[in-house]
Amino acid sequence: MTVLDPAAGATVGDLTEAELLEVVLTGLAPAVRDGHWPAGAVAPGDDAALVPAPRGGTLISTDAMGEGTDFLHRWPAGPRTRGHDAGWKAVAQNLSDVNAMGGTASALVTALTLPPTTPVAWVRSFAAGIVGAVRHLGAPDCRVAGGDLGTGGRVHAAVTVLGDPHPGGVLCRTPAAADRDRVLAEGADLVHAQAVPDGPRAAAPPGPGWAAAGLTLLLTDRAELERRADALPAADRPSPRELARAVRAQLRPRPPLALGPAAVTAGLLTLMDVSDGLGKDAHRMAAATGGTGPALAPWLDEAWLAEAAAPLRRVAALAGASPEALVTGGGEDYGLLGLAWPETELPRGFTRIGRLVPAGARPPAGHRPPSESGWDPFAG
Amino acid sequence: MTVLDPAAGATVGDLTEAELLEVVLTGLAPAVRDGHWPAGAVAPGDDAALVPAPRGGTLISTDAMGEGTDFLHRWPAGPRTRGHDAGWKAVAQNLSDVNAMGGTASALVTALTLPPTTPVAWVRSFAAGIVGAVRHLGAPDCRVAGGDLGTGGRVHAAVTVLGDPHPGGVLCRTPAAADRDRVLAEGADLVHAQAVPDGPRAAAPPGPGWAAAGLTLLLTDRAELERRADALPAADRPSPRELARAVRAQLRPRPPLALGPAAVTAGLLTLMDVSDGLGKDAHRMAAATGGTGPALAPWLDEAWLAEAAAPLRRVAALAGASPEALVTGGGEDYGLLGLAWPETELPRGFTRIGRLVPAGARPPAGHRPPSESGWDPFAG
Repeated sequence: MTVLDPAAGATVGDLTEAELLEVVLTGLAPAVRDGHWPAGAVAPGDDAALVPAPRGGTLISTDAMGEGTDFLHRWPAGPRTRGHDAGWKAVAQNLSDVNAMGGTASALVTALTLPPTTPVAWVRSFAAGIVGAVRHLGAPDCRVAGGDLGTGGRVHAAVTVLGDPHPGGVLCRTPAAADRDRVLAEGADLVHAQAVPDGPRAAAPPGPGWAAAGLTLLLTDRAELERRADALPAADRPSPRELARAVRAQLRPRPPLALGPAAVTAGLLTLMDVSDGLGKDAHRMAAATGGTGPALAPWLDEAWLAEAAAPLRRVAALAGASPEALVTGGGEDYGLLGLAWPETELPRGFTRIGRLVPAGARPPAGHRPPSESGWDPFAG
Repeated sequence: MTVLDPAAGATVGDLTEAELLEVVLTGLAPAVRDGHWPAGAVAPGDDAALVPAPRGGTLISTDAMGEGTDFLHRWPAGPRTRGHDAGWKAVAQNLSDVNAMGGTASALVTALTLPPTTPVAWVRSFAAGIVGAVRHLGAPDCRVAGGDLGTGGRVHAAVTVLGDPHPGGVLCRTPAAADRDRVLAEGADLVHAQAVPDGPRAAAPPGPGWAAAGLTLLLTDRAELERRADALPAADRPSPRELARAVRAQLRPRPPLALGPAAVTAGLLTLMDVSDGLGKDAHRMAAATGGTGPALAPWLDEAWLAEAAAPLRRVAALAGASPEALVTGGGEDYGLLGLAWPETELPRGFTRIGRLVPAGARPPAGHRPPSESGWDPFAG
């Protein structure tokens, strides 16, 4: 084994396959070995791993992240996507999918493609980001159950996550048959839960729109951002802290992993994670619930919308977007969107944000329909 | 929805994301819908799918395949990797991993990256290849449980497969504790099962070495192959049928999916699939079995080796390799390698090919130690 010194600037191309594997496995060890493999299970290293699935079924979801399409090593605005950020986000977006079914992540595997020029330090940081997301987002039972390493022209990470369903059942985008008739007749409350705080002493977490604001800012050339900032009145210029908050919301999403299972316990009717924007996803949930039956339409509470948009005012001004458009159209928040009866007591962390009502019924007072289109920062 | 005519040469870049998804889902439909989702399960289309796992645990393995590193759209020798071949192989190598644990595939997901210039017809063919492998290799219970679509510079398919373990247990690379002491003291028989026939009327299936011969031939320039063929005596020149057989072994591997579970029933001690060459994998199994205890060494029966090498004589001559080196060093055969007691009655399809013996013990008569190095067609 070569003695590897990250300070010496070794790259993936300097290592044999066995050495690269050793770097990754060492980084992932805390999530592979930590007493995660009970008797009868098979840890990674064989042809396949055997992951416990005590509930008779396993949730599964896959999501890939590629350099150039999903992230840039260096953004036009200046910040870098560190390996830790990439590993964290690749895992977080998958953990979010299991959470959105009301489940608990039990295992993950990663197929990782690396250009030979990738610094070994970046790979080490990537593995640490996987372990960090699993630990800090609250997925202590999520084992790293295997992987695949390859080389290619760009960094690409395909993550598959498994999850144990909640004993109380799974929460789909469509209510159970027993609830659907009432939803079609009376409608239901739209409820939402957002990202979790960055740490125990952190301020209120970034809500919907922050990740999209971060992406828009990251994609804007640094000189252009400075020009824009200079042109804004001082009171409208975002603070460094607000900018960091938007960037962090994009690079290190924090899906609220305790809240999916809590939603099952509380008796929510449906659940999904907000990955393509609140408005677009609310319309999706309406369509899934209505099915081929009567149409349903989502309405958002204007007071809630104003409250969610207010803190975004300054970053939105710099991003050249309306704060409301960021809230309803912004993707990659990985908050939760669901339906609940008006009489349901929501778990802590959930808020009523609107109503799903039969199409053509009288719109609820003080509400407006969200746009169906997501926020597209690439659309200039 | 655009009216798509493959003959018109539409590419991925001509389609919206929804249209591309529709193409893939339509192609995969037979493996998604076929009564595969019992009550309580959740089919793909939600945040995650819920796959039955009736045995309290699920096998999981992931393997990626990338254009340029794992296959070429057009090989120097002339043949193309059709979408069907790529989809087939991406799935086959994963099904093989579950088979090698003695399990039965229950679900798969694919994260697929496609360049915008990819013909839509290729994508359709890729989906058909996935369905084809699942059906024709004998994995009728393997549901397509989800996926992810992205764009990028090269085709890349990361497949994750889940499997139900056999009720009789899983077969690892290491014997169960109860058997290991006897293996360490007495050794055990090395057993092997190879690819399954291409069809009910097909000739004996291509054995170890054929896939490596195919790869070597595919990577050789057509003009060079013709020059070499002309230089060979007529009796040493491979027939078109032999060439097609080698190419097919490489592009469309056929792991013997019935034999993994049969190995559990028969009481084999260990099992793995041969992906990096029989010799290298036999040494790996010896190392895994020996662990930190006394060393074990693999020996191959020379009569078996000669028999396996004989049919490769002409393709090996054209490939510029020794038939024996192809048999012991050739990768991607996806046959099965295992250990059994001498008194164990092997399931049909398995053959005794050698012995694993304590290092330093007297070598078995008529045997030779296989090289630890795999066959590397890229190594000139």
